[in-house]
Amino acid sequence: MEISVIGVATTKFGELWSVSPRALAREAVFGALDDAHVPLKNIQALFVGNMLSGMLGGQEHLGAFFSEELGMQVPAFKIEGACASGGLAVHTAVNSILSGQYDTVAVLGIEKMTDHRPEDVATALMGAGSEEERTSGATFPGLYALLARVHMKEFGTTVENLAAVAIKNHYHASLNPNAQFHALLTIDQVMRSTAIAEPLKLLDCSPISDGASALLLTSKRVKSQKSKDKIQIVASAVATDTLGLAQRETLTELKATREAAKKAYSQAGITVGDIGVIELHDCFTIAEILALEDLGLYKKGKSAEAIKRGEVTLGSAKHCVVNPSGGLKGCGHPVGATGVKQIVEIVEQLRGNAGKRQVSEARIGLTHNVGGSGGTAVVHILAR
Amino acid sequence: MEISVIGVATTKFGELWSVSPRALAREAVFGALDDAHVPLKNIQALFVGNMLSGMLGGQEHLGAFFSEELGMQVPAFKIEGACASGGLAVHTAVNSILSGQYDTVAVLGIEKMTDHRPEDVATALMGAGSEEERTSGATFPGLYALLARVHMKEFGTTVENLAAVAIKNHYHASLNPNAQFHALLTIDQVMRSTAIAEPLKLLDCSPISDGASALLLTSKRVKSQKSKDKIQIVASAVATDTLGLAQRETLTELKATREAAKKAYSQAGITVGDIGVIELHDCFTIAEILALEDLGLYKKGKSAEAIKRGEVTLGSAKHCVVNPSGGLKGCGHPVGATGVKQIVEIVEQLRGNAGKRQVSEARIGLTHNVGGSGGTAVVHILAR
Repeated sequence: MEISVIGVATTKFGELWSVSPRALAREAVFGALDDAHVPLKNIQALFVGNMLSGMLGGQEHLGAFFSEELGMQVPAFKIEGACASGGLAVHTAVNSILSGQYDTVAVLGIEKMTDHRPEDVATALMGAGSEEERTSGATFPGLYALLARVHMKEFGTTVENLAAVAIKNHYHASLNPNAQFHALLTIDQVMRSTAIAEPLKLLDCSPISDGASALLLTSKRVKSQKSKDKIQIVASAVATDTLGLAQRETLTELKATREAAKKAYSQAGITVGDIGVIELHDCFTIAEILALEDLGLYKKGKSAEAIKRGEVTLGSAKHCVVNPSGGLKGCGHPVGATGVKQIVEIVEQLRGNAGKRQVSEARIGLTHNVGGSGGTAVVHILAR
Repeated sequence: MEISVIGVATTKFGELWSVSPRALAREAVFGALDDAHVPLKNIQALFVGNMLSGMLGGQEHLGAFFSEELGMQVPAFKIEGACASGGLAVHTAVNSILSGQYDTVAVLGIEKMTDHRPEDVATALMGAGSEEERTSGATFPGLYALLARVHMKEFGTTVENLAAVAIKNHYHASLNPNAQFHALLTIDQVMRSTAIAEPLKLLDCSPISDGASALLLTSKRVKSQKSKDKIQIVASAVATDTLGLAQRETLTELKATREAAKKAYSQAGITVGDIGVIELHDCFTIAEILALEDLGLYKKGKSAEAIKRGEVTLGSAKHCVVNPSGGLKGCGHPVGATGVKQIVEIVEQLRGNAGKRQVSEARIGLTHNVGGSGGTAVVHILAR
C-alpha cells in the first residue's frame, strides 16, 4: 500500500453553537491544504464521512454539497457507516487512489450534533443499531452497559476500572487544545456522576459534539515537496458483524475489531508489539477495555487493570500510548469526524508535532473506528 | 479498466406494499448470485446505494444492516449521493476492485419509498437540493420545470416534445416485466394529465417507487466459469456541479453530465457514435432531452424533435435505443436502485437476454445517473 498523508487539520471539537457545518468543513479542508502546501485545484475527489446529515439536517446530497461549498467541483461521495463513517470514508478514499482513478484526494469527516434536541440526537444515533434494538427502546449507553456487565462478570472488571479510562482520557484531553474537555477528572467525580445505564455513569460516556477533520491523501505517483511531513498509510481494513448484540456469538469481544485488526496487521506486515501509539473508539469507557483486548494489546480480561496501572497513559506508558488526543471521551465524538480525527492525531504524533501530548519515539500508529455496538470496525495503520 | 459484471438481478419496480427492504435486498443479491453461479462466500465486500434509509427509515448503518441480512459478514459501505447513490456505489465498487483490496464484490441499489406519506417523501427528496431551494419551498418538479422553460425558450422545444419522451418510455416499459407501468400512453393522455409544475404534467414525472437491483463485479484476477455472460465495465466516471440551479453558469445543460461523459469516453477510448444502447436519467421528460444533448448524441436543441421522430425508440431507432427498460419514467425510480438497475438493463441488452425489448446488435452501452438537478452525474460504459 503506497498512500501518503500529506495534509491534516481538525477543528476544535465541542459545542460549537456559532459555527455552521459549512464553516467547519472549510476550516478542516482548507487547513489540510495549507498544511500540505497544496493548491485546491490539485484535489481530484472528495470523500465525506458523515452519519446524520439526512436525519438531523435534511441534506442527503452531501458530497456535492461540500464540493460546492469548498469550491472544488470534483467527484464527491458521502460514505455512511454509522459512527464508523469517517473511517470508512478514509478506506474508500485509499482504495480510490490505489485504483488509479484519482491521485490526490481530500477526506472530510464532519458532524453537527448540538443544533438539535438531545432526544432527537439520541433517536437518530439509534439508526446505528438493529431494528429490534431500536424498536424495543434500547439506547447506546444501554447496549454498552450490557457489554460492560458481561465483562465484569467474566473477568472481574470493576466500575473503578471503567473510571480509570475516563480519567486517563480526560488527562490526555487536557493537553490537547482541540479537545472538547480540558478538566481533569478524579475517581470520586466519575463514581458520583449520574447513572446513565448501570454500570455506566455520565462520565463513562463520550459527549455529543460538533466538529470536522480533514486529510489529504496522495499516491506515490505524485511527488510532494514536503516529504519530511509525509506519513504513510500502510494498512486499511474493514470488517462487519451483526448489527444487534442479540445475534452475536459472544459479548466479551467485538469480533469486527478483531478481524479488521488481523487483516491490518497482515497488510502492514507488523505485529501489535510494533505499535507505539493508538487512537481507538472509546465511545464508552468499556469500549476502550474491549478494544485493547480485541486489537491484541492485552489478553482477554487483562486490559482493565493495565489501564488503571497507567500502562497506556502518557508519561507512564510501557510501550504504547492509547488515545493521546483524549479519545472520544475527552476530545469529543462528532460521529462522522471521529474516524478522520483519529488519523489526524496519529499523523501529528508520528510527525512529532503533537505538542504537550507528544508520544516519544512512536514510529507506527494505529486507528480503530467502530460503528454502532460493533457492526462495523475500521483499522488503519500508519508509519513514518 | 478490467472489471467484469458476472451477475445481475433486479426486483420488479413499483408500489410493493407487501415487500420489506430486507426481502427486496435478498431477491436482488441472491438473484445476482444465482445468475453468476457464484456462492455467497465468494463475495468479499458489499456496496449499498441508498438515499433515504435514514430520513424515512431511521436506519443509518445500512452496509452492516444488509451484510447481516444477506448472511455475508464482509466489509460493507453505504454510498449516498442523492438520486445518484446507485451509480456512485458502482463507481466506488469498481475502484475498490481496481485497488486490489477486493476481487469479487456485490453492489446493491435499494429504496423503499411507498411506505411513507407522499409529503414526507417529497420533503426527504429535497435533501438532494440546495439549502436555498429547500428553504424557499422549491420541489424537484419545480426545478426541472425551470430547466424545461429555459429549453423551450432557447430552442423552441414544445410540451408535445416532452410528452414524446413519456410515450416512448412507457412503450418500452410495456415490454419490460419488471417495470412499474405497463400501460401505453397517448399524446392526449399526457397533455390532459394534471399540471404539477408547468410545463411539467403528472405524466412528465417519474413515479415514487420501491425496488432493488444488484450486480456482482469481479476483477480479471478471478476466473469465472460463465465467460459468455461476462460484460466488461470499460469506463466509470463521476462529475459534480453546484447543488442549486441559481449558481449555475447555464441552465441549457447539466454540466456534470457533460463532464462525466467526456471522461468516460476518454477512459473507454470510444466516441458517442459507438454506443448502441443507453439507460439515462429521465426523472422528468425534460431530463432525457437534456441528457441526450449533454451526452453528445445530439447537438443542443436537436434531441427533442429526434425523440419525437422515433430516432431512439425500439424498432425505429437509427443507431441507438434510449431507455429500453422504460427509464425512470416507465420502469420506476426507487432512487438508490436506479443507477444499479441501469447497469442491470445494459448487461441484459449486451448479453442478448432482454426479451421483447432487446436492442439488436448493441455491443457497447452507456448508463447515466444524476443526483438532484445535476449536482452529481455518473456515467458508466459497458461492452461485450
